[in-house]
Amino acid sequence: MKRLLLTLAATATLAVSLPAAAQFQKSEDAIKYRQGAFNLIAAHFGRVAAMASGRAPFDAKAAAENAALASTLASLPFGAFGEGTDKGLPNRAKADIWKDAAKFKAAGDKMVAEMGKLDAAAKTGSLDAIKAAVGGVGGSCKGCHDDFRAERYSN
Amino acid sequence: MKRLLLTLAATATLAVSLPAAAQFQKSEDAIKYRQGAFNLIAAHFGRVAAMASGRAPFDAKAAAENAALASTLASLPFGAFGEGTDKGLPNRAKADIWKDAAKFKAAGDKMVAEMGKLDAAAKTGSLDAIKAAVGGVGGSCKGCHDDFRAERYSN
Repeated sequence: MKRLLLTLAATATLAVSLPAAAQFQKSEDAIKYRQGAFNLIAAHFGRVAAMASGRAPFDAKAAAENAALASTLASLPFGAFGEGTDKGLPNRAKADIWKDAAKFKAAGDKMVAEMGKLDAAAKTGSLDAIKAAVGGVGGSCKGCHDDFRAERYSN
Repeated sequence: MKRLLLTLAATATLAVSLPAAAQFQKSEDAIKYRQGAFNLIAAHFGRVAAMASGRAPFDAKAAAENAALASTLASLPFGAFGEGTDKGLPNRAKADIWKDAAKFKAAGDKMVAEMGKLDAAAKTGSLDAIKAAVGGVGGSCKGCHDDFRAERYSN
């Protein structure tokens, strides 16, 4: 898990030192943190995705700012999936996150990488480049959710 | 409210365009977002504060990274206090947030400014500078919580 964190942090726009387990006193804290981080990622990525799909007018500056922020945030939740954080608050983490840690790591790495590409695309100001990169991010979100996020909250 | 957001965004390390009301479809979304943002701010500020108080060993690189992230996040929650977002999910926002918007704006501005000072202090690598700046941030958190955060969740 520590290696996952270091790898993800290293690829993030703003690398943050995360000595994993030491960061959260209680499982509840880790769950709240990762849910909060995913919420912010979804909100800021969503603002760019809305422009890419035409649901919102294209604003190159706002797209670049929201993509940069989403990329900065992208690696954060993965610092909060330590062993034993499956319970403590209602959450949708599947047991496979811990059973198949390598696959979960790859899925997290993929999202962080795709969000980095979106950040780079948005900096160019090209809506076509943004559209392509939004598709990549969306696919990485869905892939991880399909495998590692349960339909319903439990615990 | 829009002016508040623009002012806060302009003072943040990473300014994000926030055309306020348009960002959240439902009050519930705004409440989840701001609670998530405050959670992340508290977590990353808390890591620096723990070093400042001696509860955690001082690591200049980690302090600088966490302070930078907290400063980037600092203005975000204030984009999610639009009119009508007092209800929708259990939350601790007092009515004074909307009744005395100028005072709330000042309290938010203060926290964002103090977090910016902490970011600058942490970049110097001086633990003494960090300690002083942590005190400033802590005071701004407490001041706003005293005035605008209820003891108990409601709604």
